[in-house]
Amino acid sequence: MISFLSINNLKLSGRKGKSIIYKKIKLVYLRKIFTSLIKMKSIVLPAYNGNVLRAMLGLKVMEVDIPKISDEEVLVKIAAAPCNPSDIAFMQGKYNVVKKLPALMGFEGSGVVVDAGNNTVAKSMMGKRVACFTQSQTSGTWTEFAKIHYKNCIPARDAIDDEQASTLYINPITAIGLIEYAKQKKAKAIVQNAAGGQLASFIRMLAKKEDITVVNIVRKPEQQQKIIDQDNSIVLCSATDNFEEELVETIKAEKVDLCFDAVGGEEAAQLFNALEPNSDLLIYGGLSNKDIAGLNTMDIIFKNKKILGFNALDWIGQKNESDFLELTNKIQSLFEEKFIQTSISGIYSFDEVVKGLKYYIQNMSEGKILIKPTL
Amino acid sequence: MISFLSINNLKLSGRKGKSIIYKKIKLVYLRKIFTSLIKMKSIVLPAYNGNVLRAMLGLKVMEVDIPKISDEEVLVKIAAAPCNPSDIAFMQGKYNVVKKLPALMGFEGSGVVVDAGNNTVAKSMMGKRVACFTQSQTSGTWTEFAKIHYKNCIPARDAIDDEQASTLYINPITAIGLIEYAKQKKAKAIVQNAAGGQLASFIRMLAKKEDITVVNIVRKPEQQQKIIDQDNSIVLCSATDNFEEELVETIKAEKVDLCFDAVGGEEAAQLFNALEPNSDLLIYGGLSNKDIAGLNTMDIIFKNKKILGFNALDWIGQKNESDFLELTNKIQSLFEEKFIQTSISGIYSFDEVVKGLKYYIQNMSEGKILIKPTL
Repeated sequence: MISFLSINNLKLSGRKGKSIIYKKIKLVYLRKIFTSLIKMKSIVLPAYNGNVLRAMLGLKVMEVDIPKISDEEVLVKIAAAPCNPSDIAFMQGKYNVVKKLPALMGFEGSGVVVDAGNNTVAKSMMGKRVACFTQSQTSGTWTEFAKIHYKNCIPARDAIDDEQASTLYINPITAIGLIEYAKQKKAKAIVQNAAGGQLASFIRMLAKKEDITVVNIVRKPEQQQKIIDQDNSIVLCSATDNFEEELVETIKAEKVDLCFDAVGGEEAAQLFNALEPNSDLLIYGGLSNKDIAGLNTMDIIFKNKKILGFNALDWIGQKNESDFLELTNKIQSLFEEKFIQTSISGIYSFDEVVKGLKYYIQNMSEGKILIKPTL
Repeated sequence: MISFLSINNLKLSGRKGKSIIYKKIKLVYLRKIFTSLIKMKSIVLPAYNGNVLRAMLGLKVMEVDIPKISDEEVLVKIAAAPCNPSDIAFMQGKYNVVKKLPALMGFEGSGVVVDAGNNTVAKSMMGKRVACFTQSQTSGTWTEFAKIHYKNCIPARDAIDDEQASTLYINPITAIGLIEYAKQKKAKAIVQNAAGGQLASFIRMLAKKEDITVVNIVRKPEQQQKIIDQDNSIVLCSATDNFEEELVETIKAEKVDLCFDAVGGEEAAQLFNALEPNSDLLIYGGLSNKDIAGLNTMDIIFKNKKILGFNALDWIGQKNESDFLELTNKIQSLFEEKFIQTSISGIYSFDEVVKGLKYYIQNMSEGKILIKPTL
């Protein structure tokens, strides 16, 4: 297959000789020919399936058209793309984003910008290495080339490799956003579940910086010990007999007034009911795939306890360009200084993706799996 | 039984002759003797019972001590006291307030101040007719004399009779507070359940003043017709087959972005899930006596939909004295002008209270029942 970088090279070589207008026309013409002729390998979801295993087994590696970019978009030649819980929920048709089928998979990744629309900022990204994000109906990152809005690209600093860069978007932004919420609320301490996961570990690191205590909840005793060893944090295991009692006591003792919930369902309600007056339950994930059930009505009415949602996209959507730039610089610095790093449990080629996903859903707390088109 | 007004009269007669100090000593002495000697009739709850009928049947009319007042309290000779949903929940041990047993019943009422503590404001209320509220462990309004903090008394204007005055506190303050929330949120339209009730009718009246559309939900078709006849409002009946569809369509069509829920349980979740993005579910009552179950986790995360509580006490607790005065003046005016009026479905003596309560819980939408010690 002809790599799309060839188009880029053609463009670069076209800079020698001839008038600029002629070159531009020639380039547009050449690009059009290439884009219509060449295909890219992609992981494609033919059908949503509530059964996660069946959804995974349904995934296909297919040759599809390279997406056409608009003025404000860039085309990223993907180097690496992670699987996040949102991808798992998406396959099951249980995510906020529902694409027309067959659908391209993957919401974030890293790579080099090989084509750009007419927008000045988009153009300025040509040839640069970026972390990128897309929820477009006609794009995805588990593919060779992803069409990305220039606003959803973060230029990746040299010290951050492709693998870390591919995880720069969803988790770091969510963690920073959640900690910002905690700071605004002047939270004394936080309780969080799914504490064995990547996002939870980022939250612990960022909370430490802000002197906010974190009470962690895991499902398995081995995760409990792992976090205690790493961070010397407070960790409760929901599998223990007296978990609910321990939870209530710890929340009281540590003056927890904010809960980050990644699970939803009955677990979210259990946490909510354990919270003290004037606490917020901030739900940012629905790992349980279940409706929230069991919230104490009286607690809501009489204890000034609220239930709210958080998602990274809405949060960054409220930021102006300079605030967003500040945020992306912060993320870059955190990764560059290795203050936070994504644990990667395995790297898989397109053909190995089902194997990788199976491993991921059974060992989420070990880290992300990455998909690499070049393997 | 010697009415407590006798003590008051003694005090008044004591004003003639003798030195002031002597009179004061004499009065304190006389009051002490009377307070310890005389008893008052009260409705007493001997035991909480989750079964509402059993809880009611357990109520006793008993002679108990007249409560002693502190400096900031007044003693109100009760003229009338309503039964609210909070009283029903209280009997079942399912309310926010749990008193030591045996407990005095009743949270609001009206009457004349017959004794007052040393506080200047408390003293200034002597002899005045007031609407009053108490959640004290050692007080209640289904009784002859209620001990009330002076801050929980609203002087009743002459045009407001004892019966209307007895309902001046809980429902009007809640309705005004909820509408204030709607105004602050700049809500375009509200959906509310338990729409056959008193509070809901106050909300309709106040919303009309503010040009806020109200979508009403009732359980019985006859209630639906009654509200349509009264108010020409939008009314849905949750007993109809296609209620859920109708609800979603109406919410969309009327641009509802706020829900007042008096029920909790699955009904609250059904309403929440039907709401559009950026809507709030404000829960102010738990008529279902059930935990909230069935909230769509993804809606919370991705649609900026919140769940919050509202209770009148916390709301007025945030007000300074002048704001509270303004609020009570507003309520008085609304009642004086008969812009809002409480429907009273029956008036019962202490001995008839069980009969009255049975009627009330079966016919809540007909209005309040009142209890009168003087009957």
